Amino acid sequence: MRTVIESVPNISEGRDRDRIEEIARAVRVVRGARLLSVSSDAAHNRSVLTLVGDAASLESAVLALFDAALPRIDLTKHSGEHPRMGAVDVVPFIPIRGATVEECVALSRRVGEEVARRFGIPVYLYEDSASSERRRNLAEIRKGEFEGFAEKMKSAEWKPDFGPGQPHATAGVVAVGARPPLIAYNINLGTRDVSVADRIARAIRHVGGGFRYVKAMGVELADRGQVQVSINMTNFKKTPLHRVFECVRSEAERHGVAIVGSEIVGLTPAEALYMAAEHYLRIENFSPDQVLETKLLEAED
Amino acid sequence: MRTVIESVPNISEGRDRDRIEEIARAVRVVRGARLLSVSSDAAHNRSVLTLVGDAASLESAVLALFDAALPRIDLTKHSGEHPRMGAVDVVPFIPIRGATVEECVALSRRVGEEVARRFGIPVYLYEDSASSERRRNLAEIRKGEFEGFAEKMKSAEWKPDFGPGQPHATAGVVAVGARPPLIAYNINLGTRDVSVADRIARAIRHVGGGFRYVKAMGVELADRGQVQVSINMTNFKKTPLHRVFECVRSEAERHGVAIVGSEIVGLTPAEALYMAAEHYLRIENFSPDQVLETKLLEAED
Repeated sequence: MRTVIESVPNISEGRDRDRIEEIARAVRVVRGARLLSVSSDAAHNRSVLTLVGDAASLESAVLALFDAALPRIDLTKHSGEHPRMGAVDVVPFIPIRGATVEECVALSRRVGEEVARRFGIPVYLYEDSASSERRRNLAEIRKGEFEGFAEKMKSAEWKPDFGPGQPHATAGVVAVGARPPLIAYNINLGTRDVSVADRIARAIRHVGGGFRYVKAMGVELADRGQVQVSINMTNFKKTPLHRVFECVRSEAERHGVAIVGSEIVGLTPAEALYMAAEHYLRIENFSPDQVLETKLLEAED
Repeated sequence: MRTVIESVPNISEGRDRDRIEEIARAVRVVRGARLLSVSSDAAHNRSVLTLVGDAASLESAVLALFDAALPRIDLTKHSGEHPRMGAVDVVPFIPIRGATVEECVALSRRVGEEVARRFGIPVYLYEDSASSERRRNLAEIRKGEFEGFAEKMKSAEWKPDFGPGQPHATAGVVAVGARPPLIAYNINLGTRDVSVADRIARAIRHVGGGFRYVKAMGVELADRGQVQVSINMTNFKKTPLHRVFECVRSEAERHGVAIVGSEIVGLTPAEALYMAAEHYLRIENFSPDQVLETKLLEAED
């Protein structure tokens, strides 16, 4: 595959295995797109589909997803722990290989426009596709959730980027946008004192004065007798793993605490790991083209 | 590709572009095998082809290589800096993904037997395929080179594993075998004193009491005003990059010298870099399946 874009649509169904499988099947049959995984959470009543392909095949796959999801998900009857505003709640497009953020922004606009036209759903462009600074933030858009949207949309500020001025009766609204790959990265500390993890989380996260592309919070790991700095790396190219790790190490040492280990939750692009190896081994002029697997992926074209 | 084996045949022609391209083309047309690169060295008068595929397609590709190389390379007229004993000099098979060393040993035996039968060339099995401890070492087999082989083969000790008791008139003999991936890894030191690089090389290499899977020597980098520990990592899973790097760092510090940088020459399996990232970031329960590109390669199947 020369061009690889990833899309991880979140749908508001995480309990009914048959319905989830029917929706997944509709995506799977789209030529050129590959469904890598479907991960469902019953408590959240939400599923995350991981798709890869080029722009054209992902466009078809996401439209097929809406087509299959809308008759099967009715938000007026939906409950779950995770906040949600749409039957298809959010559709991010992520450049992985041979694709730029700009191409993903263009793709998100095309898909958003077509979703509004074909299904009559209001579409909000978010993250790198956002039409205003405030709409970059998915949490800001989602505030009020499905139940609050009829009211929220009466304000001119929440006129959607595409589609009607009121939410779809059963499918609500959807956020579509381009964003960099996100890495869920946790660092475990050898202490039971969660205030240490909290303090370090505040030190490294953007809102607290830390790294531009870090969100973080302290978490207790009662069964391990440890605490964790739970981190979302929202742009690993500009804020790399190793820089955050070393900062956490230094902050932890100041409290007399050691790093016990770290973990990557879910998937990571290979490049995030190459960057750590390159840093610590001080590799000069490293290029991903020196990796055999890169050559293999290119040979698949 | 579910199963990926790599083969990097070395042929004794590095100057005549047309001949090299004719030989490469014969390999390229074999279904299922992929020729990733051809690297020629005029001074060595030698080319290295990098092929990937499953066992069956590589067997066909290597036989096609012999078919094309034998009429085009005459060792009685060959000269070059690199020692050589065959028109096709050496054919290693390397497990990369979904294949074991044992499968590569079996493949090397099949290919060796067929090369002997079809082309009348004596075949020596080497490295993990070797029939004796001495034949593991390619340098031991190659001693005497093409010109000395008629004499060398008179000794019972150098009876080939397959094929006739005397070298092929123009194509000599060939070594075929399975081996782990090899990484050419150099570490540059901030000193002009090559004796420091020499001493460190002796400390880390197997013959000097160092790591089991390390070959190393000191080299002067006159244009950079530095010296280099030039390393061959012959089994990065058992002797990983980061362990060697840290050992070199410690030895260099004892001489008051810092590591300026390192470099990977040619290709490396992704896993060698994952292992370094995993070590320094202390990642718990890491699996290559957590890397998006691994999923992509699997999705290609």
